Amino acid sequence: MAENTKLVEEITSRDVDFAQWYTDIVRKAELADYSSVRGCMIVRPYGYAVWENIQNELDRRFKETGHENVYMPLLIPESLLDKEKEHVEGFAPEVAWVTHGGSEKLAERLCIRPTSETVFCDHYKNIIHSYRDLPKLYNQWCSVMRWEKTTRPFLRTAEFLWQEGHTMHATAQEAEEETLQMLNIYADFAREYLAIPVIKGKKTDKEKFAGALATYTMEAMMHDGKALQSATSHYFGDGFAKAFGVEFTDRDNLLKTPHETSWGMSTRIIGAIIMVHGDDNGLILPPMIAPVQLMIVPIMMHKEGVFEKAQELLKRASSICRAKADFSDKTPGWKFSECEMKGIPLRLEIGPKDIEQDRCVLVRRDTREKYFVALSDLETEIPKILALIQQSMYDAAKESLDCRIYDASSEDELKELAASKPGFYRALWCGSEDCENALKESAGITSRCLPFEGHLPKGKCVCCQKDADKTVYWGKAY
Amino acid sequence: MAENTKLVEEITSRDVDFAQWYTDIVRKAELADYSSVRGCMIVRPYGYAVWENIQNELDRRFKETGHENVYMPLLIPESLLDKEKEHVEGFAPEVAWVTHGGSEKLAERLCIRPTSETVFCDHYKNIIHSYRDLPKLYNQWCSVMRWEKTTRPFLRTAEFLWQEGHTMHATAQEAEEETLQMLNIYADFAREYLAIPVIKGKKTDKEKFAGALATYTMEAMMHDGKALQSATSHYFGDGFAKAFGVEFTDRDNLLKTPHETSWGMSTRIIGAIIMVHGDDNGLILPPMIAPVQLMIVPIMMHKEGVFEKAQELLKRASSICRAKADFSDKTPGWKFSECEMKGIPLRLEIGPKDIEQDRCVLVRRDTREKYFVALSDLETEIPKILALIQQSMYDAAKESLDCRIYDASSEDELKELAASKPGFYRALWCGSEDCENALKESAGITSRCLPFEGHLPKGKCVCCQKDADKTVYWGKAY
Repeated sequence: MAENTKLVEEITSRDVDFAQWYTDIVRKAELADYSSVRGCMIVRPYGYAVWENIQNELDRRFKETGHENVYMPLLIPESLLDKEKEHVEGFAPEVAWVTHGGSEKLAERLCIRPTSETVFCDHYKNIIHSYRDLPKLYNQWCSVMRWEKTTRPFLRTAEFLWQEGHTMHATAQEAEEETLQMLNIYADFAREYLAIPVIKGKKTDKEKFAGALATYTMEAMMHDGKALQSATSHYFGDGFAKAFGVEFTDRDNLLKTPHETSWGMSTRIIGAIIMVHGDDNGLILPPMIAPVQLMIVPIMMHKEGVFEKAQELLKRASSICRAKADFSDKTPGWKFSECEMKGIPLRLEIGPKDIEQDRCVLVRRDTREKYFVALSDLETEIPKILALIQQSMYDAAKESLDCRIYDASSEDELKELAASKPGFYRALWCGSEDCENALKESAGITSRCLPFEGHLPKGKCVCCQKDADKTVYWGKAY
Repeated sequence: MAENTKLVEEITSRDVDFAQWYTDIVRKAELADYSSVRGCMIVRPYGYAVWENIQNELDRRFKETGHENVYMPLLIPESLLDKEKEHVEGFAPEVAWVTHGGSEKLAERLCIRPTSETVFCDHYKNIIHSYRDLPKLYNQWCSVMRWEKTTRPFLRTAEFLWQEGHTMHATAQEAEEETLQMLNIYADFAREYLAIPVIKGKKTDKEKFAGALATYTMEAMMHDGKALQSATSHYFGDGFAKAFGVEFTDRDNLLKTPHETSWGMSTRIIGAIIMVHGDDNGLILPPMIAPVQLMIVPIMMHKEGVFEKAQELLKRASSICRAKADFSDKTPGWKFSECEMKGIPLRLEIGPKDIEQDRCVLVRRDTREKYFVALSDLETEIPKILALIQQSMYDAAKESLDCRIYDASSEDELKELAASKPGFYRALWCGSEDCENALKESAGITSRCLPFEGHLPKGKCVCCQKDADKTVYWGKAY
């Protein structure tokens, strides 16, 4: 059975070299490939199908909450980017500049959008005049570009796909509610669809988005104990609106400035799916997001009736889930390995013996458990097992997250944890950026968020020992 | 009723100034807006919802025929664009060049994709090795950029949204079949969803895509008698594959070069929908593609029971079509005008008198016909009338196309037609590019296509009077 194990042999073990394991999965599961442009990836059909499933469900949730999709220009004139001071300082160093159209030099350079607050505000200025025009709840699906130095597929690429919501509201309160609503939509989606538990919280001023008053985040825990910021939602107050001259006449006939939010989730989340769920045999996809939920593998296909039975089962399975059958001339062992590498949640094996006994074998990808199932029960058993996989993948990820949260009460303890126990370190913080910088210097960790839940009792700052009432999750992050 | 007609007054009449009428509709129906970047438009929620409906149905048809979606990098290195000579000559003059990343000057400039043959081929080189890897049937939904001098929303913009399919096949025959299959998918979609009849045919060498062996096109006829190239499908032979070194080992163990196609439809098609169906009251959308198929307008909403009945009808209508109700405080007349401007196929009016008689009024957007319908019949009548609208919009467009096709047998006749009767001019052609150039010079027309159907009997070239057996549709075009 050399063939059977060949695919598997080619993956580096998670515990030997996590970074290499990650890259191996991206390539071997055919999620993405490198391109001729530094830092830009090719999202291959299997990876893109995962992204489409993410898009469909998120888009449904956005529309259900009243959001509309639009498409804004890819290019932003330098003068527009310059309008909000903090924003341009944050993004100008990492944008790609267009300087020529055909053979002509442009009068003003244009950058490829790194994010679109500026163009949305520029448009909102033209279409918002009255309280009747509010709220404006727009979203767009597009690619953005940030000229990163070191890149890794999905996790950090010069170009990536995402959605960016940009909304305008009559009051600060409404905008703040929107900001939190969208964070909750992301977190619910991560839990229910991606089987990924997250810590929700607020970013410190040091870590917040360039130009935002508040940035909310959800942080997920990867298998190697590093955090991954998986989605963010920003509250801008009226800063951008003022910079761009967006105003409206309110019900009381006074001219006011609207309040703004923005929020986004990107293809980065596919990196999280890989690093939360994958194992040494490859990717493991939660059923809710898997392009193929069930793969049928016929055994001894040359024997009479096997091919026909597999086709019949494919037809039945297709009416209850996203099913495929592998009728290629590869060996069953090879096909099993491919199913595992691609993280297909459930595999159905059917051979002459099974047919004789009117049953088949179902094999779970996550636990490798086998079930012998009567063919007459397929319609009830497949959905039941898929739901079971989804739930137990979440439970396993939750357990893995929980057992990687450590409390620390001194800087030394934090440093020791950071050096020996990868994970989240919960500790009190006084609120000073100096302490944040000091901990980055001494322990190599950053503040991930001020969590909404799970606060420590008041005490002393883990760094400066002054009075502190802010609980922070610290950690190393992607 | 000043309010009632205000919206309508603001549109220029089609027959007074077609170009201004078009722009008025784009703005007043809130399909698109101008942006701060020259030639780049903002696709507004209503326009984007039309595009989403187009995407959903085309994407379904692509997948049904075995195509998979991918995402390729936005940027193309100059050296990659240079690999296919005709291609780079066609596109280099109209691309946007990125020369700097952040503050660093790039070693090689990168262009924003004007089309992605080059990046697909570069990827195919890496993933195609054996006949087992063929065919590769990839598509991507993205934006592209062409640095156009004069632009108009949807019709010609520096940046536009589209899908581009790029496929590789083991044999020339298979690739040619794919090219025609995709053209037929576009034409069927245009007929069945957009209610737009098209002329299918082949482009002359002069008009074909840069680098293609053959370009197939579908040409639609706008209300002003100008043609609009609405989708194209290209057959490349093995030219690109050779230039990029794509090779595979065939079943016979010989090393061969695969054959390639590409095909695309863009947001330009929204321009066609406007110009084929719209009238002096605004847009008219075919029901199959309309974001809102039925708008409920309550009459005398302050009267008891009207609001509740309208809500009840909305609930019922929503289960059979894409329905909305306008409960705003605008007058019914204003709401009617808005429905007309936005081209909503069917309007439902419900007031106290109607409620008394257990009926409502349905008004078609296309013909303005009114139907008094018993409320108990809504579930059967609404789908029936929507289907009727779809069909009669197609019939009207077909008639409008047919009566704009003129035959010409001499250059003088062609010139006279071009000056007096906007439309397609069917005439014989010898096949020489000199004749094409001469007709462009003398009559201001270009060859639209060599049609698949409706050939003229052999005779003399309309231009040079030499023997000719090629039928060409000539015309002015967008």
